Amino acid sequence: MEEKNILELIEQKKYIQLKKELSEMNEVDISEILDPLELHTTLLIFRMLPKDMAAEVFSYFSPEQQADIINAVTDKELKFILDELFFDDMIDLIEEMPANIVNKILANSTQEERVLINQFLKYPAHSAGSLMTIEYVELKKNMTVKEALDHIKKIGLDKETIYTCYVTDYKRKLDGIVSLRTLVVSEPDKNIMDIVFEDVIYVGTHDDQETVANIFIKYGFMALPVVDKEHRLTGIITFDDIMDVMEEEATEDFQRMAAMMPSEEPYLNSGIIELAKQRIPWLMILMIGATVTGRIITKFEDVLSSIVVLTAFIPMLMDTGGNSGSQSSTLIIRGLATGDVELKDIWKVLWKEFRISLVVGFSLAAVNFIKNMLLDRVGLMVSLTVSITVASAVMLAKIVGGTLPLIAKKCKLDPAIMAGPLITTIVDALTLTVYFGIASALLIK
Amino acid sequence: MEEKNILELIEQKKYIQLKKELSEMNEVDISEILDPLELHTTLLIFRMLPKDMAAEVFSYFSPEQQADIINAVTDKELKFILDELFFDDMIDLIEEMPANIVNKILANSTQEERVLINQFLKYPAHSAGSLMTIEYVELKKNMTVKEALDHIKKIGLDKETIYTCYVTDYKRKLDGIVSLRTLVVSEPDKNIMDIVFEDVIYVGTHDDQETVANIFIKYGFMALPVVDKEHRLTGIITFDDIMDVMEEEATEDFQRMAAMMPSEEPYLNSGIIELAKQRIPWLMILMIGATVTGRIITKFEDVLSSIVVLTAFIPMLMDTGGNSGSQSSTLIIRGLATGDVELKDIWKVLWKEFRISLVVGFSLAAVNFIKNMLLDRVGLMVSLTVSITVASAVMLAKIVGGTLPLIAKKCKLDPAIMAGPLITTIVDALTLTVYFGIASALLIK
Repeated sequence: MEEKNILELIEQKKYIQLKKELSEMNEVDISEILDPLELHTTLLIFRMLPKDMAAEVFSYFSPEQQADIINAVTDKELKFILDELFFDDMIDLIEEMPANIVNKILANSTQEERVLINQFLKYPAHSAGSLMTIEYVELKKNMTVKEALDHIKKIGLDKETIYTCYVTDYKRKLDGIVSLRTLVVSEPDKNIMDIVFEDVIYVGTHDDQETVANIFIKYGFMALPVVDKEHRLTGIITFDDIMDVMEEEATEDFQRMAAMMPSEEPYLNSGIIELAKQRIPWLMILMIGATVTGRIITKFEDVLSSIVVLTAFIPMLMDTGGNSGSQSSTLIIRGLATGDVELKDIWKVLWKEFRISLVVGFSLAAVNFIKNMLLDRVGLMVSLTVSITVASAVMLAKIVGGTLPLIAKKCKLDPAIMAGPLITTIVDALTLTVYFGIASALLIK
Repeated sequence: MEEKNILELIEQKKYIQLKKELSEMNEVDISEILDPLELHTTLLIFRMLPKDMAAEVFSYFSPEQQADIINAVTDKELKFILDELFFDDMIDLIEEMPANIVNKILANSTQEERVLINQFLKYPAHSAGSLMTIEYVELKKNMTVKEALDHIKKIGLDKETIYTCYVTDYKRKLDGIVSLRTLVVSEPDKNIMDIVFEDVIYVGTHDDQETVANIFIKYGFMALPVVDKEHRLTGIITFDDIMDVMEEEATEDFQRMAAMMPSEEPYLNSGIIELAKQRIPWLMILMIGATVTGRIITKFEDVLSSIVVLTAFIPMLMDTGGNSGSQSSTLIIRGLATGDVELKDIWKVLWKEFRISLVVGFSLAAVNFIKNMLLDRVGLMVSLTVSITVASAVMLAKIVGGTLPLIAKKCKLDPAIMAGPLITTIVDALTLTVYFGIASALLIK
């Protein structure tokens, strides 16, 4: 059903047909259609959704729309939505809402839920604990396959996933997992004990979400159990939330690497001031940093004024150095993020970048030399000066670009800040120092 | 079980214990341990794996190890591995292997398999067709839930996923899907017809993998059906392969945006020449491009030589312009990749970037003016010239950086090439032109 047709049905008040069409649509799409409508329309249609869809549609609304709806509905309706929401969506909701709405939510929760909410809100941002949910299927070792399947049949609709079931002991310690696939293909009278897989891979509540994402990618898991320090099962993380994490983490790195403060808001939804604030700090720092390069030029003013043609090569030298450095730092930053490169590889990286920079530096210097001699005709000594600087700039840039992200990681900083813009500023200063040094030696008698 | 312990067991030839330990490990981990060992050791241990694990372990080996194993095993063993491999892994294998190995593989396939392999090899790289597999569960509308579950019980172990089942008609056209969850919670005598979900979201064999990944992220699906032009079900794509695609696509964009030719090989596994080749072409192009900026400087040599202090600001102006442009282009490129920004938003983006650049440009110019007057003491007119250039550079850069990726997309180029390095080169030339223009107007009488 197209969005346009749904909007038409709303306008023509064909509610019976509308209700039927909506019940056959995906919740994500319904929420996309309803979100931008006015509150009273959204609410009207929201209320005609089948009960099991309403909470899911609600969970995809924008925070503004969610707040308006919570304000508008009765306590009974709110209780119903909250009951149906998965626990991780509930925590996300509470984290997004203003205080008065949070109070309304808490007033409609049981004492037990409030204790749990409090516990979950304490997990650090971007930790496994902040991603997990509690709606998993728990089985015991002494159940039979038939008992397990009957259990799932009874509770299955309220669980985030039933495809991986978790076997725990009487202290809720994680004993192993059983997939629904195994249950379905096993004989009904077999014991869970005989089919449980015990060497489970799990994460701790405080593990970082990037680590968790890399485990999902490596093994292709559908869900991963999260345990506390006593190895008690506290929740599970499902693959769909990890896909969101992967996208967020990559976006964050892209932003950091382009000298921005990361933001999770989509570009088109962000305000001008918000976007400007995201961009100004690093531009300011780098602008001030670049004055160092300016000072170097001032220091060598006499060299420049005696051989004016040297100035014309400054942009090319700066850009080539900056670009070479960005290449290396980007590869290392990305390698660290995906786990392909680790801290202990620092010497391997250095040695590798050094050899690459020999090949790249020599190639660029050679082309440059030929171009300067034949096209620009600036003379042998100037051509030599520029070409030697190109080769040195590439080598310095690749070594700086290859190691700084690793050093940042070592200092527990985000390696992504050691990307193009910062590397460029550092390499600019190095390159011009080398340039004027060589020029002084070769050209000034 | 730790890698070290496994290696010890191998060395001490404790094969019985080794066999037991291996059977409890994850296939990904086993393959990671065996891959770097010598062929005869790998083969020895590979042969003691339980049959159902061997093929999966094999699918995670590096192409070199796979080729060596195929060369070393008997036809009977090879046939067994090939039979057990999922079809998408088989296609990946054939694409990676040299011709003589491919011949050995084809010689051990049935006529029917060869036809199918040929068909799958024809799907374009990075298309839905190249990602899909054929091991899905097919149901018919007139089956009962019990019949469906019995069917799954019989064939379930050979399917890539049994959690989403596909309902097709007698022409194999896709009628809808039934999740295993629905089957498990439904009464056994119900008909599939009554529980099938018909408004299925699907992709075509030739759809791009980025589009497919964005559908997975948006809806959180576990698997997605792929249909041909006649709406016949030709395969399914599972979420784990899409996680790999997401990682690959992000890495590719990171590399393109840092002026490299994309490569799928992990950094530490790539050779020096290979890495150098990945980096030289764009560096060369950008190096030549930067001579334009050099020419601009040459053209304004007289301005520079009459007011020498102007040269000292060139690095700062170039860097600030380049960084501002990179910020904008990065946000747009990433927005295009995740689907947050679309081609039709070009005017919205332009208008947004224009307003942001006013805020950012004015802030930077103000700080710069104060610094030049109070710290560097270069005089009012020079300070004014530099600050006006900073503001103009930011505005030009943000508009160029915000629109070029959209224009690239419009021209069916990868927007990621319109990132930092290329934008910097373009903005450098614009910035210096503005700089000397303003300097000529304000400072030369």
